[in-house]
Amino acid sequence: MTTLDQCRARDEQDPLRAFKDQFSLPTGVIYLDGNSLGVLPKATSARVTQVVEEEWGNGLIRSWNTAGWFELPQKVGNKIAKLIGAGPGEVVATDTTSINLYKVLSAAIHIAAADSPQRKIIVSERSNFPTDLYIAQALCKEHGYTLQLIEEHEIASALTQDVAVLMLTHVNYRTGAMHDMSKVTQAAHEADILTIWDLAHSAGAVPVDLHSAKADFAVGCGYKYLNGGPGAPAFVWVNTKHADRFWQPLAGWWGHATPFEFTPDYKPAAGINRYLCGTQPIINMAALDCGLDVYLATEELGGMSALRTKSLALTDLFIALVEERCAGFGIGLATPLNHAQRGSQVCLTREHGDGLVGAPSGAFAIVQALIARGVIGDYRAGDGKAHKDIMRFGFTPLYIGYADVWHAVEHLRQVLVNEEWKRAEFNQKHAVT
Amino acid sequence: MTTLDQCRARDEQDPLRAFKDQFSLPTGVIYLDGNSLGVLPKATSARVTQVVEEEWGNGLIRSWNTAGWFELPQKVGNKIAKLIGAGPGEVVATDTTSINLYKVLSAAIHIAAADSPQRKIIVSERSNFPTDLYIAQALCKEHGYTLQLIEEHEIASALTQDVAVLMLTHVNYRTGAMHDMSKVTQAAHEADILTIWDLAHSAGAVPVDLHSAKADFAVGCGYKYLNGGPGAPAFVWVNTKHADRFWQPLAGWWGHATPFEFTPDYKPAAGINRYLCGTQPIINMAALDCGLDVYLATEELGGMSALRTKSLALTDLFIALVEERCAGFGIGLATPLNHAQRGSQVCLTREHGDGLVGAPSGAFAIVQALIARGVIGDYRAGDGKAHKDIMRFGFTPLYIGYADVWHAVEHLRQVLVNEEWKRAEFNQKHAVT
Repeated sequence: MTTLDQCRARDEQDPLRAFKDQFSLPTGVIYLDGNSLGVLPKATSARVTQVVEEEWGNGLIRSWNTAGWFELPQKVGNKIAKLIGAGPGEVVATDTTSINLYKVLSAAIHIAAADSPQRKIIVSERSNFPTDLYIAQALCKEHGYTLQLIEEHEIASALTQDVAVLMLTHVNYRTGAMHDMSKVTQAAHEADILTIWDLAHSAGAVPVDLHSAKADFAVGCGYKYLNGGPGAPAFVWVNTKHADRFWQPLAGWWGHATPFEFTPDYKPAAGINRYLCGTQPIINMAALDCGLDVYLATEELGGMSALRTKSLALTDLFIALVEERCAGFGIGLATPLNHAQRGSQVCLTREHGDGLVGAPSGAFAIVQALIARGVIGDYRAGDGKAHKDIMRFGFTPLYIGYADVWHAVEHLRQVLVNEEWKRAEFNQKHAVT
Repeated sequence: MTTLDQCRARDEQDPLRAFKDQFSLPTGVIYLDGNSLGVLPKATSARVTQVVEEEWGNGLIRSWNTAGWFELPQKVGNKIAKLIGAGPGEVVATDTTSINLYKVLSAAIHIAAADSPQRKIIVSERSNFPTDLYIAQALCKEHGYTLQLIEEHEIASALTQDVAVLMLTHVNYRTGAMHDMSKVTQAAHEADILTIWDLAHSAGAVPVDLHSAKADFAVGCGYKYLNGGPGAPAFVWVNTKHADRFWQPLAGWWGHATPFEFTPDYKPAAGINRYLCGTQPIINMAALDCGLDVYLATEELGGMSALRTKSLALTDLFIALVEERCAGFGIGLATPLNHAQRGSQVCLTREHGDGLVGAPSGAFAIVQALIARGVIGDYRAGDGKAHKDIMRFGFTPLYIGYADVWHAVEHLRQVLVNEEWKRAEFNQKHAVT
């Protein structure tokens, strides 16, 4: 059996341990939801106040130049590029993940239509994050394409000569299962299919190397592992071989070659800058910049490689502790045990009552009971069929330690032993909403 | 001749005078660029700190519910609705003006295509804000439509049976000239043409009544007259009769009927909520909320009607003082003298040197010399033909007084008398950029 003292000893030896002090974690909380909204870095609030009071308040319109607001999408994008294996000048931070997906999927459809007009299918996973599927549905409707949804094991056989684009989320938001980006991209390219990768649960969570994977397009999120704050701008990357082939339809002034000439005709900027559109939320963008600075500070300790080592150790520990301490309560594991297929989160299931798939799982009530104890994870409902209800726990090595994992599992054990989830279930049943 | 004492006396009698104290204006600055980036309200910084430290830092993921983040687009939208003659539940604050224009122009094209498929032209003004024209160009390219650009006086004759949509900016960003929204909309509707109004230079600047004008679609900006801060979210309004007819293609999860069921099929929310897409920048959104609260506080003093009265008095005074004090320096007026056609800004031109249209106007250098004196306006280049170089001065009655106007014109007079613009011109010529 793993002991709390052993976990504390591992914290003592953790080379990344000092980074926890760079975050403003509320007292009494073990935060296992950094995959949904990252924690506030301590440096952020002062920076935000500076942007508001000095740059906006005193600098006013002049700050577009003097405070570098106009270059923030590129500046922040270059910091993100280091985390995802992209080069400088290849990434911009802007808009939302959904909107950036619309841009790159528009571009992929147009490029595929030019190169192989008979291909009219976009393939994605049924379990992909829904907003990705909604955006794809909208573009399919506009362009007369078909969205084909498959299961993970059907990807290889789905890469047919009718497919234009394979659009996947690298790490699944529900299960934490991770694709082999290089292998899948290679298989797609061998079938002349373009790839779009959503890195929402990858950037800052697992090592990503877009260049070595030879990916075509990628988008991702600023407010999860990147700790950019609520609604932080998202990001977009386009392989340089595609960047200038098409101007995406959200053709706003910030993507113009010469935006301050105010000419009536759109002329796209070169490269990734044409994926910009309108004026960006500068306060949120500055907060994202602070979140990225914490990542840059990890570089001398090994950066994403060191973070990955710790992330796997944390999720291994969580899985082992659940197995050791929570046996007999019907807890199952939805996240792959194989390291190569695991993101930075662990998802548990629960068989409850008659144990049939589709029966009330109790998972929602367990998550609520854990939150009442200060262990914040989240719940994602299943479909009553193949996809079970999920209790989702994200492990962010920047601010989660081994003893935190031990305590989290102990809380889970208490919730199960004391049947604390019953009260949460009762409250849910009788909630007045 | 109007005297400074007379201007001070008008400030004393100004019922809106106290509102200046609600803004954090830098010392030594007369800010006449609120039409580009509004001034920081004093309440905003504390609110932003609360969002960052309490709501994000302590509340973390829970704040989506407990701090009302998820309802902010509607809450802020309802405040904007009061300024533009829209009803509650009809406006959302979200994304950027360019992106919102893409949504409503997509909707207008699809609705027009369903109702009158032979209409394949979108009409706009050549002098419209360029990003509006770029977005229209992109959609025309996607849908096989034509963008027809005209001058203001050609609008009536352009409303032919081939036109699907008339897309105009209510107050011209360059000249400050304002359309009669009711009259133009009525003319368009008589020709079965849908109207889109960009309110970027109208919302908070002039009274707008979308309901009484029977407009079809409107978008606008949060960081100009609404004082929402750099890159504040924009807004979008759709006439309720059109709102449910089409789901716009930026079909992200926030516009879904049941976003938290995470279903793979997109089902649009009813009404304006389907014009939402992805997760919004909450910090910038909260700052915009503070900007709007200042407007709500004017309601008991007459709201937009009182602000309009003062705005016209300020621009009248500026025009009169320029005429009285700056005669003989080739200064011209690009803004209509007629109140009904004037926004909340005054644009001056300059004939310089040989006085020929297209010759260097000196306007850029005059604006630079004024900024050096703390009078912040801005410059927009002409096209060397019909559109002259512009010196643009926005008058925001919330924080600009009559004595400010007097001092601004006195600075302009000094710049002209002392030929201070020559140094700015010299510096521009020899700038190492």
